[in-house]
Amino acid sequence: MLGARGLLRGLRACSSAPRPRRALPARLSVLAALGAAGGERIKVQGWIRSVRSQKEVLFLHVNDGSSLESLQVVADSSLDNGELTFGSSVEVQGQLVQSPSRMQNVELKAEKIEVVGNCDAKNFPLKYKERHPLEYLRQYPHLRCRTNALSSILRIRSEATAAIHSFFKPSSKINGSDENFFNVPAFLTVSGQLHLEVMSGAFTQVFTFGPTFRAENSQSRRHLAEFYMVEAEISFVENLQDIMQVMEGLFKTATMTVLSNCPEDVELCHKFIAPGQKDRLDHMLKNNFLIISYTEAIEILKKASQNFTFTPEWGADLHTEHEKYLVKHCGNVPVFVINYPLTLKPFYMRDNEDGPQHTVAAVDLLVPGVGELFGGSLREERYHFLEQQLARLGLTEVYQWYLDLRQFGSVPHGGFGMGFERYLQCILGVDNIKDVIPFPRFPHSCLL
Amino acid sequence: MLGARGLLRGLRACSSAPRPRRALPARLSVLAALGAAGGERIKVQGWIRSVRSQKEVLFLHVNDGSSLESLQVVADSSLDNGELTFGSSVEVQGQLVQSPSRMQNVELKAEKIEVVGNCDAKNFPLKYKERHPLEYLRQYPHLRCRTNALSSILRIRSEATAAIHSFFKPSSKINGSDENFFNVPAFLTVSGQLHLEVMSGAFTQVFTFGPTFRAENSQSRRHLAEFYMVEAEISFVENLQDIMQVMEGLFKTATMTVLSNCPEDVELCHKFIAPGQKDRLDHMLKNNFLIISYTEAIEILKKASQNFTFTPEWGADLHTEHEKYLVKHCGNVPVFVINYPLTLKPFYMRDNEDGPQHTVAAVDLLVPGVGELFGGSLREERYHFLEQQLARLGLTEVYQWYLDLRQFGSVPHGGFGMGFERYLQCILGVDNIKDVIPFPRFPHSCLL
Repeated sequence: MLGARGLLRGLRACSSAPRPRRALPARLSVLAALGAAGGERIKVQGWIRSVRSQKEVLFLHVNDGSSLESLQVVADSSLDNGELTFGSSVEVQGQLVQSPSRMQNVELKAEKIEVVGNCDAKNFPLKYKERHPLEYLRQYPHLRCRTNALSSILRIRSEATAAIHSFFKPSSKINGSDENFFNVPAFLTVSGQLHLEVMSGAFTQVFTFGPTFRAENSQSRRHLAEFYMVEAEISFVENLQDIMQVMEGLFKTATMTVLSNCPEDVELCHKFIAPGQKDRLDHMLKNNFLIISYTEAIEILKKASQNFTFTPEWGADLHTEHEKYLVKHCGNVPVFVINYPLTLKPFYMRDNEDGPQHTVAAVDLLVPGVGELFGGSLREERYHFLEQQLARLGLTEVYQWYLDLRQFGSVPHGGFGMGFERYLQCILGVDNIKDVIPFPRFPHSCLL
Repeated sequence: MLGARGLLRGLRACSSAPRPRRALPARLSVLAALGAAGGERIKVQGWIRSVRSQKEVLFLHVNDGSSLESLQVVADSSLDNGELTFGSSVEVQGQLVQSPSRMQNVELKAEKIEVVGNCDAKNFPLKYKERHPLEYLRQYPHLRCRTNALSSILRIRSEATAAIHSFFKPSSKINGSDENFFNVPAFLTVSGQLHLEVMSGAFTQVFTFGPTFRAENSQSRRHLAEFYMVEAEISFVENLQDIMQVMEGLFKTATMTVLSNCPEDVELCHKFIAPGQKDRLDHMLKNNFLIISYTEAIEILKKASQNFTFTPEWGADLHTEHEKYLVKHCGNVPVFVINYPLTLKPFYMRDNEDGPQHTVAAVDLLVPGVGELFGGSLREERYHFLEQQLARLGLTEVYQWYLDLRQFGSVPHGGFGMGFERYLQCILGVDNIKDVIPFPRFPHSCLL
């Protein structure tokens, strides 16, 4: 059988697409052109980001989304037919040459410029040379990805997606002793945690990454009706530490990958959107995450000099104001809060059998700026404990299949979920969750 | 800043999970154990797939989902406390040794076997040594992934997911002239093609891979209420060939990757589920896909000696029986059918301005056994053409944002969608779509 490489070569040569390969200038992405040596004759396609016309020379910046930086095009003024305006799409042929300016390595000396699609500047909501606030851009979900800010955020989102996938499923074959990695299936499903538990009963370590829908009618900078969630489930765990180690590893590894793969895009966010965020993020990455119990958290909150809207009390949920205080109290390092009251958490969490303050083996990770980023727990793997919980709730019949998992080769297991948009907010310092997803959907508003 | 590798090392050493690293036997996955040299003291966790008890020796096969093959455990009969039954979860410690048998390279000489969770054989729907039909297993979506057949299919699904991602977004930095690859964002969204077009107006080449929901009340071996779809959109295309080239490249490259990364799992499907499928698939991979126009397709069908339930006629949709005939007529090679009647296709497809038989630049890919696998088209990028279509349908207001894309730097573009479950059916020869997705959902049936 053909190797994939040979196959692709074959595909290009013949196949269903027998395009004649004349000695045309090669089509390069802007990213590739910027990285070229200079001297090549090439063709570039993209959208005009700036136009500067001098007496004899015309300067254009062309961007195609492949990088934050645009390619400078230098042309004889005669090539300007008046249609080369901000926002138009163009195809430029010419020779890549070393740039005399220090602003860029290479520039494209245009021989031919073709306007592919005009842009009506008067009606175009994006204005030349203006830096539009994110709130303004939010009105134009169909056009905002043509700005530096949104295209950077969306490139980072894409890199982060890939980084999360490769954290769980590295492309190189793993060596068996590396327990930090998930060597088995990456199941993409919209099913939630309970379904993931089914899979963990056969594959030991599983994860899923996809859209999730929230019925709550919540309007805030932290909530969406449709968001992305990374969920993982691990069998044969010994304790909550096993779960927390993967949570911390995921956060740090994915973030390091993003920082190293798109430094310019991250820099733009850290410079223009959230000044100071670079240092805050470095601080999170350099320090070990902390662990406190829910009971300790309540004690810390009770001793606080700050007045809370909701009085902290054992047995009550932590509110945003409490989460913020705890993170600050812990030196602005992410903090795991573990062992929550049984009555606060869903039926499937593992009973700690303690008392009189009865808790379950739950864990939330609180991070600076965002609050709760991960939620997880050990799951109740003991048939009779789970049966009692279900009976109490009148759910035994509906969840018979879930009980079955405890009847046939049950194992101690646990897992977590991480909100992907909140993760992006956390690393980039983007204040509003609607700016880190291409098409935000939230109650009573669906622009597109 | 720390490198990701250094960081992980640090994480393991200290961090939130300061587990003492005593000289315990290393925990290995079954896959890793099977690939080890022998001699190591290890620990393996998984589920018992078979038990064979002899007078003095006990043989177990333990599987943890990391590979189709199980690890053979050899133990002194004294270690059998009667709880080592089919389906139980166990933890086995011992020494990996070269196996005297030719059936495997290594086996685990057990020093200690711990039953983690019992399995009540009487009630367990999976019976020891029985090969259950797929229809039977479909009744137990929460347990069926513990069988060889389903775990193989689901490992393949996972590999295919990764293969599709890496087709669009290879991890190594691409060289700019390799036009077969998508160098820019992998956007995972539930948004459909129209939203993807928004992104292609800034990033040139975009793809998305995620769940899609179908409202149709269709009950068949080819339909689900919730399925996965790969969608791609490419700007600055010249013609349908550009789109078809990517479709063929995606199918062939992803398939070659799956075949090379999980040969045993694919072999199981080709051997037990769909005999003859290996040759059929090889035939598809070795040959160039064919291209015929819709008009040619109708002529072929009209000349056919076969009697169709639906009489083929220009202007009418192709039915499954027609698709099957066409694929067979074309020598069981995937066939692109292009240029469909304008009246059959959605408003956004590009008008071919031909006549009197008025067509649009649409393309469907028909494959053996499954029928339509991909659907795609050039999109109408010309403002006035699109405006007329929308006005005719009374949709101008609702789709103003979509028209905007043609007003501000429009470019010729096109794209396609591929049903992921149908793709898996096609390469594996699995007859029923419900067997290639972990939790199938279809009208009036939702077991879990």
